[in-house]
Amino acid sequence: MEINIALLPGDGIGPEVVAQAVKVVNAIGKKFGHKISYKEGLVGACAIDATGDPYPDATHEICAASDAVLFGAIGDPKYDNDPKAKVRPEQGLLRMRQKLGLFANVRPTFTFPSLVHKSPLKLDRVDGVDFVFFRELTGGIYFGEPRGRNEQGTKAFDTNVYSKEEIVRLARMGFEAAQGRRKLLTCVDKANVMATSRLWRETVQELAPEYPDVKVEYEFVDAVAMRLIQWPKAYDVLITENLFGDILTDEASVISGSMGLMPSASLGSKVKLFEPIHGSYPQAAGKDIANPLATVLSAAMMFDYAFGLKEEAQAISDVVNLSLAEGYVTEDIADGGKAYKTSEVGDWLAAKIL
Amino acid sequence: MEINIALLPGDGIGPEVVAQAVKVVNAIGKKFGHKISYKEGLVGACAIDATGDPYPDATHEICAASDAVLFGAIGDPKYDNDPKAKVRPEQGLLRMRQKLGLFANVRPTFTFPSLVHKSPLKLDRVDGVDFVFFRELTGGIYFGEPRGRNEQGTKAFDTNVYSKEEIVRLARMGFEAAQGRRKLLTCVDKANVMATSRLWRETVQELAPEYPDVKVEYEFVDAVAMRLIQWPKAYDVLITENLFGDILTDEASVISGSMGLMPSASLGSKVKLFEPIHGSYPQAAGKDIANPLATVLSAAMMFDYAFGLKEEAQAISDVVNLSLAEGYVTEDIADGGKAYKTSEVGDWLAAKIL
Ligand SMILES: CC(C)[C@H](C(=O)O)[C@@H](O)C(=O)O
Ligand SMILES: CC(C)[C@H](C(=O)O)[C@@H](O)C(=O)O
Repeated sequence: MEINIALLPGDGIGPEVVAQAVKVVNAIGKKFGHKISYKEGLVGACAIDATGDPYPDATHEICAASDAVLFGAIGDPKYDNDPKAKVRPEQGLLRMRQKLGLFANVRPTFTFPSLVHKSPLKLDRVDGVDFVFFRELTGGIYFGEPRGRNEQGTKAFDTNVYSKEEIVRLARMGFEAAQGRRKLLTCVDKANVMATSRLWRETVQELAPEYPDVKVEYEFVDAVAMRLIQWPKAYDVLITENLFGDILTDEASVISGSMGLMPSASLGSKVKLFEPIHGSYPQAAGKDIANPLATVLSAAMMFDYAFGLKEEAQAISDVVNLSLAEGYVTEDIADGGKAYKTSEVGDWLAAKIL
Repeated sequence: MEINIALLPGDGIGPEVVAQAVKVVNAIGKKFGHKISYKEGLVGACAIDATGDPYPDATHEICAASDAVLFGAIGDPKYDNDPKAKVRPEQGLLRMRQKLGLFANVRPTFTFPSLVHKSPLKLDRVDGVDFVFFRELTGGIYFGEPRGRNEQGTKAFDTNVYSKEEIVRLARMGFEAAQGRRKLLTCVDKANVMATSRLWRETVQELAPEYPDVKVEYEFVDAVAMRLIQWPKAYDVLITENLFGDILTDEASVISGSMGLMPSASLGSKVKLFEPIHGSYPQAAGKDIANPLATVLSAAMMFDYAFGLKEEAQAISDVVNLSLAEGYVTEDIADGGKAYKTSEVGDWLAAKIL
């Protein structure tokens, strides 16, 4: 198969972890006989520094013409504490999501036997956790208009808005995922307060009869924020709007004890994007110490979700498990054992595939 | 002192737990020589059933004329899964907050030595946790206009809106609380996405120089959702908008292992309201098994925050600690020991005060 990948390393540790995923993807290409080519684009703070725009048109064209996007991370502290900054790296991310139509962010949470002891939760609460969030990614308060300030600047406002179609297409993905899993779907909303949430709940209730094998539960976002910590094993597939998804998927990410390993996919009508859930971690940038496994596992998701190449995806998961079993890992998860460099882990994984 | 309390027991276990707090408050009145009188009002599902309105005018008048409101809980499942229901119990709560001007919800999280083992978090993460949220309670997306549907009903929208004054009055409470504690204030927002959040951050930055002894940190809501689980001891005072506060205070409530004991206060310009953070727990209603300690501790907060009667507040905390030490508690925290009824715990606490 000919595979044309857009590489968006981004800021901080992004370039380092993406470089390791590329080694692994190349090894897979060699082993399974795929012709893989890359085009690289700028995004985030580095794109602002180079072009003044966090998501330049040139980058968009590379992504739109690709079969899949492999993304690192963006964000630089120099843009964070300046509320008046005109351009922020995150605007690039948001514009990218919208222009590429990436309406569904798929965020699995699962545990690795060798890492689950790192969870802040007690072992019995978290051992065997396995759920996945489908977060709506191109709607809601992230994009709604009007937004801004009054003339005097003394009042600010944002608009949360959802159409039925936006909810339907995200919810269907959740229902279908649930059918292939433990058949439980949790719709997370704030229907006791928000009009948008009532449309979510109503729309999901209308769809439910089409998926009679799926049990549907409706929970308020505040209740889910509690139960994710108390009984995380109770969940299977969760669907929710953009802002709630932002908060809850990050909350979920720390309970497994392997935040540095969690991949994600952002799906849309055409292009699909894959990225680690961790951030740009600027303090570690350039030190060759960042954990590349989440990006490598995002590449595994890419083979599965973007190309339907399950064997290739499995081969990547297998070498990642091997690196954990053999302790060939970076310092964040070395646990007293020898810590390897980011680049060493990438080389090792690629070599093991071949 | 003459003290005139509005009692709003509400739904589910509300009446049972409020009844125990009343026993304790009466004992305090007797011991310290205060003349305490009560007026009772309907709120929530029971108010809808009786009058069609979840916060009837008669109830508002009782509250507005009182020195403090003692509130139980509201909510009934029969109203939850009907997105088209015209009247919902929660509307009463929201209208009450707004009409009484209760703009600051104070939500402490702390641990009890005898209960901290019930936390889903590992002991070293949570032992000694002590922080307090100041959640803005009468603004934001809970009340912003416009909100609703388009004509065809296929699109729904909500408005998040904040004025500088709303932020200033809440933030000042947070700064002052921090001055009396560990002098760390965390402003929680989503300034990388939302215009309202940028006004929050900017406003807090402007106020900070007036409180030079307080260290101010700015964190995104998604980061706080993670760090509350990972490093809850890092926090002291947190301030945030209404919706973020709803989610994060509920998340925070489960980490201490003593959710059934956490009190809260809602403060405003005149009337102040006190309530347990737990819900109406309909499954337990009428069984005389609900834990009354959170409501009793809310009464302690009332003596302190509403009347400045610190000795009285301390006397209540002391008997609650005694009941924990002696195991005179309800089944949820009996831990294999004898479980006492809700009413028995109330009688015991009142008797110990006298
Ligand atoms: C950087 C920020 C705009 C972004 C979001 O809020 O969506 C991030 O938190 C995420 O979840 O990808
Ligand atoms: C019942 C609901 C409207 C309410 C809220 O969202 O404020 C509740 O969750 C709370 O936190 O008091």
